[in-house]
This record gives sequence, structure tokens and C-alpha cells, in this order.
Amino acid sequence: MKKINRIAILTSGGDAPGMNAAIRSVILAAHHYHIDVIGFYHGFNGLICKENINQTKCLSLVDTSNIIQRGGTILKSARCPEMQTEQGLKQAAKTLNNNEIEALIVIGGDGSFNGLIELKNYWHGQLIGIPGTIDNDLDGTDFTIGFATAVNTAIEAIDKIRDTADAFERIFIVELMGRHSGHITFNVGIACGAEQVLSFENFSIDDKEAKLQQLADEINTAQENRHSSYIIVIAENLWPGGAMELAKELRQKANVDCTACVLGHIQRGGSPVPKDRLLATKMGVAAVQAIIEGEHCIMIAEQNNTMCHINLAEAVKHHKVVNQQLVEAQENILALTAQNQY
Amino acid sequence: MKKINRIAILTSGGDAPGMNAAIRSVILAAHHYHIDVIGFYHGFNGLICKENINQTKCLSLVDTSNIIQRGGTILKSARCPEMQTEQGLKQAAKTLNNNEIEALIVIGGDGSFNGLIELKNYWHGQLIGIPGTIDNDLDGTDFTIGFATAVNTAIEAIDKIRDTADAFERIFIVELMGRHSGHITFNVGIACGAEQVLSFENFSIDDKEAKLQQLADEINTAQENRHSSYIIVIAENLWPGGAMELAKELRQKANVDCTACVLGHIQRGGSPVPKDRLLATKMGVAAVQAIIEGEHCIMIAEQNNTMCHINLAEAVKHHKVVNQQLVEAQENILALTAQNQY
Amino acid sequence: MKKINRIAILTSGGDAPGMNAAIRSVILAAHHYHIDVIGFYHGFNGLICKENINQTKCLSLVDTSNIIQRGGTILKSARCPEMQTEQGLKQAAKTLNNNEIEALIVIGGDGSFNGLIELKNYWHGQLIGIPGTIDNDLDGTDFTIGFATAVNTAIEAIDKIRDTADAFERIFIVELMGRHSGHITFNVGIACGAEQVLSFENFSIDDKEAKLQQLADEINTAQENRHSSYIIVIAENLWPGGAMELAKELRQKANVDCTACVLGHIQRGGSPVPKDRLLATKMGVAAVQAIIEGEHCIMIAEQNNTMCHINLAEAVKHHKVVNQQLVEAQENILALTAQNQY
Amino acid sequence: MKKINRIAILTSGGDAPGMNAAIRSVILAAHHYHIDVIGFYHGFNGLICKENINQTKCLSLVDTSNIIQRGGTILKSARCPEMQTEQGLKQAAKTLNNNEIEALIVIGGDGSFNGLIELKNYWHGQLIGIPGTIDNDLDGTDFTIGFATAVNTAIEAIDKIRDTADAFERIFIVELMGRHSGHITFNVGIACGAEQVLSFENFSIDDKEAKLQQLADEINTAQENRHSSYIIVIAENLWPGGAMELAKELRQKANVDCTACVLGHIQRGGSPVPKDRLLATKMGVAAVQAIIEGEHCIMIAEQNNTMCHINLAEAVKHHKVVNQQLVEAQENILALTAQNQY
Repeated sequence: MKKINRIAILTSGGDAPGMNAAIRSVILAAHHYHIDVIGFYHGFNGLICKENINQTKCLSLVDTSNIIQRGGTILKSARCPEMQTEQGLKQAAKTLNNNEIEALIVIGGDGSFNGLIELKNYWHGQLIGIPGTIDNDLDGTDFTIGFATAVNTAIEAIDKIRDTADAFERIFIVELMGRHSGHITFNVGIACGAEQVLSFENFSIDDKEAKLQQLADEINTAQENRHSSYIIVIAENLWPGGAMELAKELRQKANVDCTACVLGHIQRGGSPVPKDRLLATKMGVAAVQAIIEGEHCIMIAEQNNTMCHINLAEAVKHHKVVNQQLVEAQENILALTAQNQY
Repeated sequence: MKKINRIAILTSGGDAPGMNAAIRSVILAAHHYHIDVIGFYHGFNGLICKENINQTKCLSLVDTSNIIQRGGTILKSARCPEMQTEQGLKQAAKTLNNNEIEALIVIGGDGSFNGLIELKNYWHGQLIGIPGTIDNDLDGTDFTIGFATAVNTAIEAIDKIRDTADAFERIFIVELMGRHSGHITFNVGIACGAEQVLSFENFSIDDKEAKLQQLADEINTAQENRHSSYIIVIAENLWPGGAMELAKELRQKANVDCTACVLGHIQRGGSPVPKDRLLATKMGVAAVQAIIEGEHCIMIAEQNNTMCHINLAEAVKHHKVVNQQLVEAQENILALTAQNQY
Repeated sequence: MKKINRIAILTSGGDAPGMNAAIRSVILAAHHYHIDVIGFYHGFNGLICKENINQTKCLSLVDTSNIIQRGGTILKSARCPEMQTEQGLKQAAKTLNNNEIEALIVIGGDGSFNGLIELKNYWHGQLIGIPGTIDNDLDGTDFTIGFATAVNTAIEAIDKIRDTADAFERIFIVELMGRHSGHITFNVGIACGAEQVLSFENFSIDDKEAKLQQLADEINTAQENRHSSYIIVIAENLWPGGAMELAKELRQKANVDCTACVLGHIQRGGSPVPKDRLLATKMGVAAVQAIIEGEHCIMIAEQNNTMCHINLAEAVKHHKVVNQQLVEAQENILALTAQNQY
Repeated sequence: MKKINRIAILTSGGDAPGMNAAIRSVILAAHHYHIDVIGFYHGFNGLICKENINQTKCLSLVDTSNIIQRGGTILKSARCPEMQTEQGLKQAAKTLNNNEIEALIVIGGDGSFNGLIELKNYWHGQLIGIPGTIDNDLDGTDFTIGFATAVNTAIEAIDKIRDTADAFERIFIVELMGRHSGHITFNVGIACGAEQVLSFENFSIDDKEAKLQQLADEINTAQENRHSSYIIVIAENLWPGGAMELAKELRQKANVDCTACVLGHIQRGGSPVPKDRLLATKMGVAAVQAIIEGEHCIMIAEQNNTMCHINLAEAVKHHKVVNQQLVEAQENILALTAQNQY
């Protein structure tokens, strides 16, 4: 067990509900081990800015009060292109040294972790990542902080859309966040009882025309056999032009009337659900413990409800694939709702 | 007091949370006065369809169970172009007569009420409107059923967006429903503490270029003076191209980075808030009482927390204007948040 | 229009959602008129404490950020028995004079306003009350800040209880806050479709035994005729021993099995609903405007959606009675659900 | 793979959010394999009632519409003492045989599963349990249906209580459901940032007096050092007399003022959160698949995010213990908030 005096923490990349709960937990755990915590503002920019005015804060127990339930991040976040330049990385290392930081905890996604991996070449302190992204696409951890809340928010929205869809027996196409992964899309699709789930895992752009025809046929059959609503959830960045364009094409080419909804940024905010608060609390503690255990260049992860450590390079090598059981559940069983008469 | 044996009810136009609570209340009140209630499905289409298969249901107390809290409408809704033709109106009158209906209650907005006014020329039963639309634009009633819930849904969404906006000190443009009125936009804008409210009541398209410049200036000043989020709420159908286009123009012409969100159909659904449940319950009772009082061609309304009757033609003559106190509150006081340093 | 330099604000009595929105609005409006605002902590205690350490804060625009949506009060609240003594009142006046306060705004209920009325004898500045209490029992204003949120919270809770009640076809007795008024109880009872509403307005303790028998009879009839849930909402401080005791008596004397729930303090907290945010925002502005208009010893009120002023003594003279339309709606119509077969 | 023609399903014991999602999933999956599904109402009572009037329903795809998001259970639930008698068990077997049922799926907790184990001696069809209980106390499955929603509901309630607690710097004792396990208590306690978690896993009634003194000391220290709220969450059935009595004892013996809240039945109801909808959907499918695989007397379980089968006798042998990491997290780290000055 290593004696550590001072660590730093920052939040980077897209914000995710639960980031504040993780900050709180890091402060509490660090206090327990008599370690000072410096917060840097605005992601990696806090390390780059030459004048350190308003870019850092010494975080104490007072700062943990009443934030476990808040969305966003009290340390702010931002993109930081300078971290892709040698000059920026050197500046970051210098700032950390000037502040006598022994370890840096970054809460963020794969872009942020790539920044950490680069920083390793310029700074010799310990680097620890906490996976905070609604996309749940980091390899090696079952869940990332913010994912459960984003799924919850999307489902609450689609439950509302279902009311209107049912009233009008209408077709809705709902576009969900997730960058290049279908984690949100599949979880939301199944949990809201969507008639169709379209994501990277079950659709290739090469099959676009065929899929369009298939969707039109299924919708027409469904509309004839029963009179009911029909909801398609679709991953962002999947269909060229997104949900709006898919709706237009279904209308034009297949004579199917439908409405597109892009849920957008409401999926990022909001009070974190219990799962994210617990995950963030456990990961914050684990991050501080990893530091005193001398760990370096790792991501804190949860596997099978247990905390563990993953090499940072491993975490960002591939996007985590969607649980195959979920994909099959949707394909074999829930597709029923579209294919059958009732 | 008139002896009535049988009335009909239908929901028409865009669905609004609380329509089910109104249906429930009509059934309960009608039962109290020993009146049968027939529900017609799919708006006015239920009156048009020649074969009456699946288009009507005799509504009893059993149907009131567990619907006060449901969004959408158990009677379904739909547009009905036939109601603008003589043939359609005659068919509707015939259906009502065939079913021995003495009075028809329609829950809907101005389009639906115009249908009622036309129907008056072809049918001699009593016609009663209950104002059910999220837009709150019917003249003569302080509130319409669904408005309070739509405002609530929008605010919950913007509270989430604020989390991200704060984390990134970013500008968001949020487009709200409301057709051609700013009721939702002003209520939401003030209640979410928006930095700018753009609606028909305080913006004319002739001033587009000037407004664009003004917004850009204010945003730039605000961003320099304090580092904080900035939220613009904007009414749909106001800016050519909507929030997406406004965001693009602000980016291009004024070098201000901002993100557009179109809340869309989530504003229509969801469990009605207490205000809408109470309003719907009171209006359903008042509608049945108006029928036994012999009223004809009126809309049930609430003025100063009291039920009253408005001539249907009056209700749809003009769009109700937004409470001037609200517009002023936003202009004089809340604009501060944009104009001042802090 | 009077030139004012410095005013004070405090929150007193039970907290109510929307108090922070009112504080925010007072700060914004005061800033608009170039008036300084001093916040006193812990209700009237902030005026009493001899050493002013940590009892005051100069409130600026920075303090308005991100509080419109928060429950509780950033100025804290507390009971203050000293305000009922001459010594305490003199001390309060002295503190206000020492801080060169020209007007004091108090957000609270009737206890707090009685404190203001007493203070009038010892201090010559302007005294303004803003009605902030979930009980909605202040005379002269249609609504108090916090009431709409408390109703909403209770309904969300009872919607959940209804799920279990339906699953088990069971009887639940839900006790609601409201001190000695039935505003919450009637609004919640109707909006959640309760089978029985028991409150001061429709029940006298003298009729206890008769009511017990009547409830038992109705429940037994209801349970036989249909198999369904049965929810009784009851005002706190009404039945001796509360909902728990009523449940016991129904079980013992009438052989009816039922479950009691006391919602308790969850009704006080939570993010204010739009109605309370708007009301608080309008009242905060109106309070500052009242000060520069030279008003004294008044409560800001809303009547028919318009701001107005009520003499403080009038506001606390009687408890505001519940809207008679609501009481009748429940009695005549909704009682049906209990009395009829279906 | 076995050819199955007809199965039965019932919900038993305390209702849990997600039971309807499981029913839906069983119907969908059964339909996929061309199996008829008979629903029995009111738990095991549906099997006992001699006249089968209104006790069964043939469930088809129509019944799956719009229930994934509903709390409670469309099949109703109830206790059934007859299932503990030989006569009752024989009657249940007879009813199943009369209806030509080949397999019975029961969604419930350990009491219900003990019923199934008894029934095994009287009926030779396949018996399958789906774990549906908010208590999460069934051994062999990481999660039971309803647990995640109950935790979420409790946290939303305590977030509201925290607002008042903060405003008054007051102590609250919140009693949570969970029967004889601390799963809900620990998850809620950590996720709401409670200052103290009292449950079976970290408290023995033998230490009552010592604990009372310790609590009083910690609270007094905390109140002196910082001025803030203090929330104790406590498991039901732990402290003699519950939270009310603990509050009284702390007041009397330790001169600490505090308020007790018993959350009660709101924890059972409400729309299931995504986790419970997904778990229920996967378990419903797995139950039907287990039947065609010829499984008998098993509980469907989730371990490490994967479906598996547990012998029914194993599942009810012991109460599942709370994850030790959670207990430690609370003890080592979060206790800080109570022990330290800030």
C-alpha cells in the first residue's frame, strides 16, 4: 500500500448522469485515506490552460454534499483538441507536476481514455480511468456510468410516445443516442416493447433497400391485421439521414405514414437512477484504492457485479459488443409482435 | 331539467393527456343521471363509417376503472377529412340518429369544434365541446385539458438538457409544440428559467435578421461575462426551418456554437398531471349537466377556477392570446439573466 | 415609486417546493431595480442571533443559477420561538436596522405571517409576505407556493398504491398532509379517483361512529358487487389516531381488512412543478414591485391568475376554505364509484 | 425438445413491478412455440376455487398490448392459505388436470415457491418459478423482478425528504421494506447518500442499547461540526417498533430530535424501471424455453447477466445474503459522512 498525498480528478467528453456521484465517492474515499483531491475544470482544458485561474479547486467533504443525485458534472466538461498535440500533452504534464499531483483520475469515455494513454508518454504519475458515458461501449466493463439513466430517460419518453401512437394507431420512428453501438437501442427497444429495433448489430447499410421493403411489408401487414401502434427504435448514425430520412423514405417508397422523433440531448441529463449512483459510488472508491495499490494506466470496471481493473489500452481497443442474448431475445421473440396477427 | 336517455362521446384531433379522465367523468356523471353513454371510436370517423363494426361501444362504469391516470384516449383519435364534406356531415347525422343519440360530446381542439359547428346544420341534437388540446389556444377558457401536462413534460426534459448545457457551458435551442400560440412556450420558458423565449407574441418574422444579430450579441456577451449555459426556447412554426435552422444560422452568421433539440411528440403523451385530471373531471361533469340543462352548441370552459359555458363559435373565432403578465414577466425581469454580468 | 437601497429575505416555517424559485425571482427583480438583497438564514432565527456569524448572505445574480428547479430552501428554515417574545422581536428589529434593511420579505405560512404582524410593532420598515406553504390555507390567494407540487407528489404515490390495491382488490387508507385544511385532500382525492375523501369539510368527529359504520357498509357492498380496489384518502389531524387508527377500527369493528399509509414528509420536498415555479416567479417580482410602490404589511396573492395584495392580518384571520365546487364534485359524482354496482 | 400444448400462469404473493412484463413475455414466447396459455386469477386461489367462474382466462397476443409498463398484475394476486392443506393441494392438482395443463409458471417469492414444492407431491406437470418480489431475497438469482423499481421508488422519495432535511438541518429515519433482508436497505442507503444504514447485516438486536448511544453520539457530533441533514435508512422488522419507536427512543434517551417516515406500499407499485422490464422479458422467454426443454421444479434465475436454472428447493432454502461489497462500501467509506467534521 502506497502513501499518496495528492491526486487530481477531471470529467471529460460527453457528460453522463452519475459523474457527480463518482466525484463525491472519490472525495470521500480519498479523505478516508488522508489524500488531498484537486479538481480540474472543463475536462483536459483544465490541465492545458497556462494561467490556472479558475481552472482548479481543492475538493473537500463540503463539496460532496447534495451532489449524488445531480446530473451533469460540477467539474464541467469540454472537448480539448490540444490533448492531441505534443505541446498540449507536455503542458498537461507540467500542470500536474506543478500541482504536485501523484495520480490523475479521469471520468469519461474512449476519447478521454485515448488522451490518458497519450499522456502516459509525457507524465509519470498514475493514470486511472472511470468509465463515464451513456453509450456503454467501453470494453471490459459490463456497465458504464450514465448508461442506465439514459436507457431510463429514453423509455420514459417512449412510454409517452406510445400513448399518442396508440390513440392514432400510428407508426413512430424514435432515434436514440449511442454513437456507434446499439447498447441503448437494444435495451430501450426491448424494455419499451418496440415492434422493431434497428441497430448496427442487426442491420447493414448494404441491405438498406431490402430492409425498407421489409419494414413496409411488415407495417402494412400489422396495420391490416390489428389496429394498433407500431414503434421502431433506431440507433443514431445508422440510417443515412437518420430517423427523419427513414420516415420520409417509408412514406415515399412504401406509402406508409409515419412520424420521426429524435430524442436528442434529454438522454444525457437528469438525476442518475440508483444503478448509476451505486456504480459511480463503487467505482470512485475502487479508483482511490487502485491508486494506493500502485495501479497505473487502468480503467475501473464492473464485471459480474464485482469491481476489477482493465488495462486502458484494452478498454478502448474495440467497442464493446451488445449482449448477444439481448439481440436474440429481440429477434426470436419480440419480432412476433410485428409478424403475427392479433 | 331535461330528461335525456342517451348521449354519445368521441375524442378528436391531437390527443391530449386528460382525455381519458374526461371520458371517465362523463360516464360517471351520466350514470348518476341515468343516461346511457355510447363511445364512438377514431374521432369523427366513428360517425362516418357506414358499417358500424367496431366503431362504437356502450360505455359503463366498468370502463371508468383505472383510466384517470392514463395518457392517450381509450376512444382513439384520428383526423377525418370527410367531416368537411356535405356527404360526410349527413352520414354523421344519420349515424347519430340511427343510434338514437340526443347529445354529442366531443373532446378536442378548434378543428374538432369547427366540425361540430358544421354538423349543427345537419343534426338537431345537442352539441357540446370539451376543450382538450395541449396548445391551450381555445378562446374563453383559462385552460384546456392537456396543457398543464405538456408544460410539465417539456420542463422535465429541459431540466435534463440544462444539466448538459451547464456541464459544457453550451447554448441549446429547444423547440416546443403549440401550433400557432405561445402558451406552452412562455409557460415553459419562464418555469425552466430559459435565457430567451421566442414566440409569436414577442417576435415577428420581419425582424428575423435583426433578431439573429441581437441573439448573437447577447450570447457572446453572456458567454464572455460569465461562463454558463444559455437556453433559448422557441415556438414551433415560428422560425423558418425551426430550431435546426436557427441553430445553423446562429452558427454560420454569428459564429456562435449551439445545439438544437426538437422535443416533439413526447409532449403529447404521459400520465396527466393533477391539474389536468381535475380540470377533465370537472369538465366531464359540467358537460353532462349542460346537456340536461338543455344547452346547445357550447364549449365547457373554466374561468377563474369556475366552470362556465362559451358559445362554440366564440371559442374558435380567435386563438386565445397569451396572458400579458407572462410576456411582460419574461421581457422585463428574466431577460436580465441574458443582459447582465454575473 | 420609492427609491429602495437594500432589502432582506428569509424563508420560514415548513419548507415548500418553489421557495427557491421565489428567492431567485426576488433577486432578479431587485437587481433590475438596483436594490441589494440580504438573505437571512434559518427563518427568523437569522434575525435573532446576536453574533451574525453565518446568518446572512449578500445575494447576487450568481445565487440565482440552477435553483429554480430545486426543492427545499437555500436560505434554510426553522421554527423560532423567540419571535413570540418581546425580547426576540426587539432583537429582530435591531438586526434589521443594523443591516440598514428597508424592507423584509418573508416566504412562509400563517405562523410566519403572525410573526411579521408582531414585528410591525417594533420595526418601521416595509413587511411583505409571500405565501409559501403546501397547505394552501392562506386566505386571499387562490394558491400558495408548494401546494401544486405537494398534490402532484401525493398523486404519484397513490397511483403506485393503486397498482397494489388493484392486484389484491384491497382497501387502502392514505393519510395526507394539510394541517387543518382539506385543500390537499380534496384535490388529491379527486385527481387520483379515490373512492372516499375524508376531510374537515365533509366530516365531523361527532359523527365518528356513524361514519365508521357507513364506511364499513359501503366497502362491504363495493367488495361484493365488483372486485376492485378501494382507496380512502384522509386529512391528517382529522381522525383521532390518524389513518393507522382508522384502519384498526375498520378491521375490528367492521371486519373489513385494510392497510394504512401515511405519506408523510415526501409531500414537502421534490422539484417544484411548473405551476409552483411560475407562481413563485410571479410572486417574487410582485413582492419587489410592491416594495418600490411603498406597500406595507401585505401578502402577495394570486386571484384569478392575477397578482394582487392582501392585508397580512386578513390573510391569517381565517383558514381559506376549500373550493365548494370540489367538495360537491366529490360528493355528488365521484361517490358513485362507491355506491353503485359495476 | 418437448411438444407442449398448454401451460398455465399465475402471480402470487406480494405484487412486484414487472410481473406484467413477465406475463407478456410468457405469452409472446408461448405463442412463438404454438403453446396455449391459461391465466389463473388471484394467485393459487384461481386453482382452488371449485367453480371456475371468472378464475381463468385464455391469454392471447391481444393481452400483451400496453402492459409492459404497468405496475401490479393483470392476473391479480392474493394469499392462499388453502395451499398449505392437503385438500387445497389436491384441488389445485385437479383443476390443472381438468384444464389439461402441462406446465405451471408461478411468478412470486419464496412463499409461492414453497407452495409449488408442495404441489409437486400432488401434480405431475412441470413446475416453473419466476422470481418476482421486491425483496430480492431468493437465493441463486442476482436479481428478482421488482427489486430495481422498489429501490428506485425509495430513492425518489428520499431525495424529496432530503430537501426538507437540508432546509431544517434535521434528522430523518426512513423505514424501508425488505421483509428480513437488507437488499433494498443497503442499495437505497448508498444510492441516496444516507448517513447511516441499519439492517440485519450490520446490526443485532442484542446491541440495541449500545447502538442507540452510538447513534446519538454520532448525530450530536455531526450536528455540532457541520450544520446539515442526517438521514438514517432502516430495514423494516429490524428495530422493535420500527422507525417510529427508534425516533422516540432517540428523542427520549439521547435528546436528539428526529422524524420518522415509513415509506410503505408505494414501494410495491409504479411503472417498472427498464432493468425490471428487461429482466422480466428475459425470464418469461426463459421460462417457456425451460418448459420445452423438459425442466421441472426449477426457478428461472439471472447470474452474471445470463439466464440459468436453479432448483426450487435451493432457491428457498436460505435468504440470499446482501452483496458483501455493498456492506463494506457503506461501512468503510460512507460512514465518513457521519464521523468527520466538514
